[in-house]
Amino acid sequence: MDTQLINELKENYDIVFHDVNLLEQAFTHSSYVNEHRNMNISDNERLEFLGDAVLEIQVSDYLYHHYPNLPEGRLTRLRSAIVREESLSKFAKECHFDHYIMLGKGEENSGGRDRAALLCDLFEAFLGALYLDQGYDVALRFIQTVVFPKIEAGVFTREMDHKTRLQEVLQKSGDVTIDYRLVNEEGPAHERIFTIDVYADDRLIGSGQGKSKKLAEQDAAEKALIKIAAN
Amino acid sequence: MDTQLINELKENYDIVFHDVNLLEQAFTHSSYVNEHRNMNISDNERLEFLGDAVLEIQVSDYLYHHYPNLPEGRLTRLRSAIVREESLSKFAKECHFDHYIMLGKGEENSGGRDRAALLCDLFEAFLGALYLDQGYDVALRFIQTVVFPKIEAGVFTREMDHKTRLQEVLQKSGDVTIDYRLVNEEGPAHERIFTIDVYADDRLIGSGQGKSKKLAEQDAAEKALIKIAAN
Repeated sequence: MDTQLINELKENYDIVFHDVNLLEQAFTHSSYVNEHRNMNISDNERLEFLGDAVLEIQVSDYLYHHYPNLPEGRLTRLRSAIVREESLSKFAKECHFDHYIMLGKGEENSGGRDRAALLCDLFEAFLGALYLDQGYDVALRFIQTVVFPKIEAGVFTREMDHKTRLQEVLQKSGDVTIDYRLVNEEGPAHERIFTIDVYADDRLIGSGQGKSKKLAEQDAAEKALIKIAAN
Repeated sequence: MDTQLINELKENYDIVFHDVNLLEQAFTHSSYVNEHRNMNISDNERLEFLGDAVLEIQVSDYLYHHYPNLPEGRLTRLRSAIVREESLSKFAKECHFDHYIMLGKGEENSGGRDRAALLCDLFEAFLGALYLDQGYDVALRFIQTVVFPKIEAGVFTREMDHKTRLQEVLQKSGDVTIDYRLVNEEGPAHERIFTIDVYADDRLIGSGQGKSKKLAEQDAAEKALIKIAAN
């Protein structure tokens, strides 16, 4: 096993595997096993199966508690954005996991070390190995360090940006001018409620409310999207 | 909250909720909320989002450990068979959850209480509530009681029965005679390896090996299925 990986895990995440074989398996791609049949080693695919579910419950738990007002459909969309291949392959790279994956020659030569699907599987396999070796809570701590700060920074919430989506939907069929107009403000300063109407080419298409102008605009855009979807 | 449900959970599963509101929410369908807007209650959809992930990790963990030789693809297929709507709706009925779900009148009149999708969501919502109220281990204990015995009894392993699948695939396009022929036996009695060829209308379509005739037949059928899929 690459001692540099062991050092990086210790230094960056305070993780020390009890069973280094599990860690090694997580970093063994099937193409490497195929080229070393005499070595009697296992690839990381079963660990990936497990790690996928570990990530799913931990992200779900986080989203459930951090977005108490988000309905199920939006929670599901947000979760999908977080656990999808593109996102997980980026996490794998941020952790430098791409440096340590053991590949067969064919896979290496065809650029496998940079392939999103391979890196996504690697990230999940690592989580599976960590969960088996150290349990639920240590796996959670790792995800808290690597994944949750990105959720907090809003990297995945583009999914929930209704204004962007409304623009995309309306401008599919040509140029449309969208504008948001403040039509009401009420309540005491610390509990102010804003009402905003959204217009497409001067036609009212939705009205929303919120505790800030930004939130009211998002709400108006969402209402417009719902109307559009219903037609 | 229906005290009969509370009694059933206590008697059958030794479960007593700390927060009865969570239990109540798990048994509240959106159609009920829609008809009682004045009551300020929540439906079970967010709990379903969470419970889905709780079930996924616990079933994955179980399968990973109980099928140490099953490759990832077959683990995934087996997991899908277990967590799919049809299976979960049956679990909900076995637990009598269908007796206690609160529905709107329209949903009730259109047979919602027997609808697989609704019962599947209900089962997941209950798991979500149980996980929130009592933690991972109590949720696991419930799944161990309700779900795992069915896996052990082989209810879901039809997914892995290659002989049945081969038959289905071949006989789609008319009547075909399939037969399995023992072509070799070798090794000492306690480590015997059987080789079996499978024929469709006297044409060799696959060859497999295993520690019993049964396993060798399954292997031969799987090899044949792989060949067929590749054509």
